[in-house]
Amino acid sequence: MIEMEVLSQCAGGGRRGRLQTLHGPVETPAFMPVGTYGSVRGLTPAQLREAGVEMLLANSYHLALRPGAENISKLGGLHSFMGWDGPILTDSGGYQLFSLASSVKIAEEGAVFRSHIDGARFELSPESCVRVQQLLGVDVGMVFDAVSAEPGDRDSAASAAARTLRWACRSKAEFDRSETEAAQASKTAFFAIMQGGLFEDLRRENAAAIVELDFPGYAVGGLSVGEAREETMETAEFSVALLPEAKVRYMMGMGTPTDLVCLSGWGYDLFDCVIPTRNARNGSLFTAAGAISIRNSRYAGDDTAVEESCGCYCCANFSRAYLHHLAKRKEMLGATLASIHNVYFYQSLMGRIRAALESGRYADFRAEFLDRYQGVEQ
Amino acid sequence: MIEMEVLSQCAGGGRRGRLQTLHGPVETPAFMPVGTYGSVRGLTPAQLREAGVEMLLANSYHLALRPGAENISKLGGLHSFMGWDGPILTDSGGYQLFSLASSVKIAEEGAVFRSHIDGARFELSPESCVRVQQLLGVDVGMVFDAVSAEPGDRDSAASAAARTLRWACRSKAEFDRSETEAAQASKTAFFAIMQGGLFEDLRRENAAAIVELDFPGYAVGGLSVGEAREETMETAEFSVALLPEAKVRYMMGMGTPTDLVCLSGWGYDLFDCVIPTRNARNGSLFTAAGAISIRNSRYAGDDTAVEESCGCYCCANFSRAYLHHLAKRKEMLGATLASIHNVYFYQSLMGRIRAALESGRYADFRAEFLDRYQGVEQ
Repeated sequence: MIEMEVLSQCAGGGRRGRLQTLHGPVETPAFMPVGTYGSVRGLTPAQLREAGVEMLLANSYHLALRPGAENISKLGGLHSFMGWDGPILTDSGGYQLFSLASSVKIAEEGAVFRSHIDGARFELSPESCVRVQQLLGVDVGMVFDAVSAEPGDRDSAASAAARTLRWACRSKAEFDRSETEAAQASKTAFFAIMQGGLFEDLRRENAAAIVELDFPGYAVGGLSVGEAREETMETAEFSVALLPEAKVRYMMGMGTPTDLVCLSGWGYDLFDCVIPTRNARNGSLFTAAGAISIRNSRYAGDDTAVEESCGCYCCANFSRAYLHHLAKRKEMLGATLASIHNVYFYQSLMGRIRAALESGRYADFRAEFLDRYQGVEQ
Repeated sequence: MIEMEVLSQCAGGGRRGRLQTLHGPVETPAFMPVGTYGSVRGLTPAQLREAGVEMLLANSYHLALRPGAENISKLGGLHSFMGWDGPILTDSGGYQLFSLASSVKIAEEGAVFRSHIDGARFELSPESCVRVQQLLGVDVGMVFDAVSAEPGDRDSAASAAARTLRWACRSKAEFDRSETEAAQASKTAFFAIMQGGLFEDLRRENAAAIVELDFPGYAVGGLSVGEAREETMETAEFSVALLPEAKVRYMMGMGTPTDLVCLSGWGYDLFDCVIPTRNARNGSLFTAAGAISIRNSRYAGDDTAVEESCGCYCCANFSRAYLHHLAKRKEMLGATLASIHNVYFYQSLMGRIRAALESGRYADFRAEFLDRYQGVEQ
């Protein structure tokens, strides 16, 4: 259903690869824009394609609450529902429970919570998460994971890692069972999620155990939940080396341009982050020299493109002055054009990352990028 | 600069025509989507083209307040600024002063008011309105007009008509003067606006006087400001017959599908209205059988297109269930896709109107359309 092919391996751990899915290949390292509720804010599938996007992320937790996984299944699955014929990965909801749901009770069996939308009672378990993502018919589902609120607290991190491992076993049993059933159910591959907070020994132990379960891909979870950036990056670097080279390695939820350049150099293959689209809606536009805040009055008369060398629809047709005007007027088109640019910037950056990995001079590329790239992120 | 060609004339007054502009021809009767602030809400120029749009309306009053006509002129004019290479018509601001500005003082010389955005003091006169629209470089500008708050009050209507006529004279003097100057200034053609409230004799007198001034086009103004619909339609019908057949005849601001079918049958050539885009954002989608409210829960599991026979990007790719989901979640893409559909519906309706006018069986078309078209409008 899904297969990782490493095309070239770099010193430092980075690799150029290709992820084969039932909805086509994805050149890696790859960045997935986030379409939480089944749409990337303000962008049509045609605009996403034009911006170079190959694979999207959606959220099975949110979609299960509304419009419901059964409903989407009846409507032909998530690809058909949202009009996207490329690969889709869904997050399982572990992190959303941790951050969004109210009156959530998480026990070994699973979680019981009230919907943050209408207060309705919901249950999530490793098994139901597998079934929901199979109903959505996505290319990649994520196993249900337990998140530690304090990745720097050893007991909390160890306990989240152990539970995530037990839940990974139950998830595997569920999709192994379902694979012998309907053909529909077997279309979704599942990735396991490594936990273990900021502790290398916990991550090592957890990685060994989930690798034993032989998933087609592995994600590093439990980072960027409040710890210092140095801790995030250190953990990210040692964690990826604990995962098998033959499998796809996915860093969940991290994705400033600097993150992408660093993490790709260490061997991560897959990323997702709301930054390009969320920042676009806030008027923050990426350029090779850093992000610019288009609402700044200095752009009111600036007839140049956001980035003159950029090949996106926005930069080919509109000036900073026009985007400034739209942002000040809160015109929807401003958010759309800024999102087109930022998504294109991200896809273009991934293309440069892949080219640098292929050329074998990644360290130079990284140094040049970081030297030039400044400015406010996040 | 602009020329109206009547291709075929129907019984009942309707005609199929072509408006030649410096930015290409417009097949008439034509509907102009509204891009008040220099963007049609949520739609790129590429999406507007794909939906069949030939000509847009923007508002010189709003653009003059922000980002300023001088600024847009420096940036290459409104076409370049908003990335639209088709014809553009701008409204002058008479109606906006009437409905939006605060502490407005309107006298014979012109209007003094506070910007509704930041309270800054502004002045508008017939002459400054001409200059602003010339700075924007639009294909068609409208002369500054005086609006009567009570079109059914004879004194008020007569006085607004008389002032609008005097202002039309001053406008003509201003652009005749400027035509002898810079080439830039002479790119904009101006249409006069007929006033006279609901009174046929006032409209007749006013029409005769503005026709005497020999403008390349004439608009019917001062309608749909609160009077009963029967009064609007009666006035619209007798008014168009008072305008010369060789000139383009524009009904300002009216545009339900029913309006378009009726008014085109009487000989109007040009329309604008916020309805297709505003209603789209509110979840109201047009079909040949009437508007549907996509937020209604009956559409939650409906896997059909908004209109199965529709050729728009939205109907080709998405179901009512998906649009329902996006509308309930208030996702930006929902407003964009609904706007694409409604704008396409309008352009497609105008195409059918033109075909019916060409075929000489407009009365049949009108009867069939009105028989089938139901549902809530506005």
